[in-house]
Amino acid sequence: MEVQIAVAKVNKYAVSESGDTLEVIERPNGGLSVVLADGQTSGRGAKAVSQMVVRKVIGLLAEGVRDGAAARAASDKLYTEKKGKVICTLNIASIDLHSNTIVLGRNNPSPMFICRNMQLDRFDSESIPLGASRDVRPSITELAIEAGLTIVIYTDGLVHAGKRRGQPMDTEEILSSIMEDQDPSPQEIADTLLAHAVTLDENRPADDISVLVLKVASRNGDNVRRMNVRIPIDGNTSP
Amino acid sequence: MEVQIAVAKVNKYAVSESGDTLEVIERPNGGLSVVLADGQTSGRGAKAVSQMVVRKVIGLLAEGVRDGAAARAASDKLYTEKKGKVICTLNIASIDLHSNTIVLGRNNPSPMFICRNMQLDRFDSESIPLGASRDVRPSITELAIEAGLTIVIYTDGLVHAGKRRGQPMDTEEILSSIMEDQDPSPQEIADTLLAHAVTLDENRPADDISVLVLKVASRNGDNVRRMNVRIPIDGNTSP
Repeated sequence: MEVQIAVAKVNKYAVSESGDTLEVIERPNGGLSVVLADGQTSGRGAKAVSQMVVRKVIGLLAEGVRDGAAARAASDKLYTEKKGKVICTLNIASIDLHSNTIVLGRNNPSPMFICRNMQLDRFDSESIPLGASRDVRPSITELAIEAGLTIVIYTDGLVHAGKRRGQPMDTEEILSSIMEDQDPSPQEIADTLLAHAVTLDENRPADDISVLVLKVASRNGDNVRRMNVRIPIDGNTSP
Repeated sequence: MEVQIAVAKVNKYAVSESGDTLEVIERPNGGLSVVLADGQTSGRGAKAVSQMVVRKVIGLLAEGVRDGAAARAASDKLYTEKKGKVICTLNIASIDLHSNTIVLGRNNPSPMFICRNMQLDRFDSESIPLGASRDVRPSITELAIEAGLTIVIYTDGLVHAGKRRGQPMDTEEILSSIMEDQDPSPQEIADTLLAHAVTLDENRPADDISVLVLKVASRNGDNVRRMNVRIPIDGNTSP
């Protein structure tokens, strides 16, 4: 088998710094974790919060701390520093090759979707962002690594796309229609969802938007690990 | 413009854990850094060393520490822990959107290549790995971010490929011939170099091999940041 991970990420219109932070880290006992945080508000302050949360989480994961404990520690740190006045959503998606499972930690009111072959399940149980109170816990979903599994996670920029114009996005419907295509790649799924949201926002995203898609495919290639990153750069301005 | 980054990475034959560690981190003042370390020997011990070095470096970069200082700190830490008995190569490739430059830090005897349009330059000045002695410094090369720039960095698995059979790899020649193709993508460059090395090793790599390619292209797309990761998974064994 192979795991494929794709991310598509865009900044709020006319804001140079995204409040969303996403990082990937190798797990010390095998596998890797993708950590996605969205700090309250947008721009520089939100970036500082989401970066702090992601740094804390990946630092702990690198030491072998379990995902749930890492999320709780980051929440306690944020709560202590900001006295409950600043919150931050967090998703952790881990390919844990020690337990041979995918572990999905969620502190994010935005739903997440799990698709097995053609069956699409929506996960939208109540989920409290980090920093809101003491003792915030993530909801954890653990799945066997099986071919045919697709997981879709996103920040609330996707949820709120189009609301300004009274045309909110129906992510589930769009996702269903993408999944009917023949074996869409994770990058196609992420790009299509993001493109819909940006269109609904009339090409001026009302918030930072990040879409993360994981897919487990039956192996059809070599033993090579690959990574690919693309960063658009404005000619003269800083990021 | 846009910066494209590609990585292709394979383990030593029949060794489940790569001694090479590569991570990507966002820089706090804009941009990102790719950090690649290769710990001495292979397998679990080498992995622990290269992970420790990469963690130390990305932790410092995340705090805004300059690349050269981060490399020196990681070297001092390794030297102190291992008393000079274990060394580790390090390359840091930073897209620094604060200074609008690409900063290349190298503590790796393996050469690196910088290609501007069709002109290929080999960088193989003496470069000492981390942990070898006190006060190890990286060689630093700083370049303006300009379209047409391609940078190729790799670990010594590529340098030693084929030596067992007396058919060493001529990386410069292969790279020259790839660059003659019409605008090869960084993934094509990384994959082609890696495939050559694996073939010379008769499909049983004698060492972990990692190839990292950065390319600055004139912008031809949207404002979306994208990332793509592919991890092959053995059915029943741990990584």
